[in-house]
Formats: sequence, structure tokens, C-alpha cells
Amino acid sequence: MYGLIGKMRAQAGKRDELLDILLGSSSAMPGCLSYVIARDPVDADAIWITEVWDNRESHKASLQLPEVQAAIKQAMPIIAGFDSSTEIEPVGGFGLPAG
Amino acid sequence: MYGLIGKMRAQAGKRDELLDILLGSSSAMPGCLSYVIARDPVDADAIWITEVWDNRESHKASLQLPEVQAAIKQAMPIIAGFDSSTEIEPVGGFGLPAG
Repeated sequence: MYGLIGKMRAQAGKRDELLDILLGSSSAMPGCLSYVIARDPVDADAIWITEVWDNRESHKASLQLPEVQAAIKQAMPIIAGFDSSTEIEPVGGFGLPAG
Repeated sequence: MYGLIGKMRAQAGKRDELLDILLGSSSAMPGCLSYVIARDPVDADAIWITEVWDNRESHKASLQLPEVQAAIKQAMPIIAGFDSSTEIEPVGGFGLPAG
């Protein structure tokens, strides 16, 4: 499995709007096992996204999906930046599809 | 929802052993929606855990479950420390139980 833990930053006051875009584009994507979008409780403009994919290629391919491309285009103007992005290698746990 | 993103560190060379303990104790827990255990691909002793719970109280209560208490006791000697722990407020995404 392949995973990402990322922290992005909305333009000031635009976090809810950015969350709506992210939530609207996070339907089932090929190879996506988990995609959790979260607010940072102490950093008013920050959003965390934790992702689990079957492999790195599925994640890369997802960035070319039309709905993802549309979301990126819509989101870009209200994204202030990316604070961090960490690759991880999920090995198991609870709540992932069996396989 | 309530979530945690944590990075822990195994004693040198003990990561696989620690992963086995964590994987063995991460069955269904009341209120747990997702619990993903991952290796850090560049930090040989580091483990990431991303958790989603229905609320903070469920997470707190889980720490008292007998199987969790047993795992903590078993794991403590080979945990070198905790690099970071970040609380998040998951709002949605893909792969979480509907509700």
C-alpha cells in the first residue's frame, strides 16, 4: 500500500470553501482505499488529508481523473500553500478494505 | 469526528516487532472508524498511525480496553518515543463508514 499525510493551507477565511471542493471530489477513485479530509482544530486555515492507496501508481493516475483535475482547478485560487507532505507505507490496521 | 496523526519511534531494529504488536491489537474498537498503521519509508525506526473516531471520548475509552492495555504493556519496552501527535477534526472523504 501507499499513503500520504498532507497539510495544506487555505487562503485566510477560505477553509470551508476549500473543504467543500475537496469533499465534493473525493468519491471512489480507482485504487483509493481511504481518503480522509480534516480540519486542524488549532490552525484556522489548515486542512489535513490522509490517503491510502493500493499503490503509488494509482495515486499518480488519480491526479489525471477529470473530476480531480476539475477540483484542482477550482481549488487552486484559494490554496495558500502546502505545509507538509509525508509519504507512508501502510501495512494494515482497521477500516481498510480487506484484500 | 475526532482524529489523530501520530509518529512513534521503535527502539533501533525493533520496528517490525512493534508493527506486529500494533497490527495484532487493532481490531474493531467501539467508535473506531479507521486505524491505519504505516511504516515511514525513509526513517527506518518510525511508524505512523492515523486514526479516525466518532468522537474524542471513544478514543479515550479505547485506551482502557483490555486488549489495548495488553498491547501497550507489550509495546512499551520497544517504543523509543513519540515524535509527534496531531489532533484533527475529520469532516469526510472516502472509505469511512457512512453515518
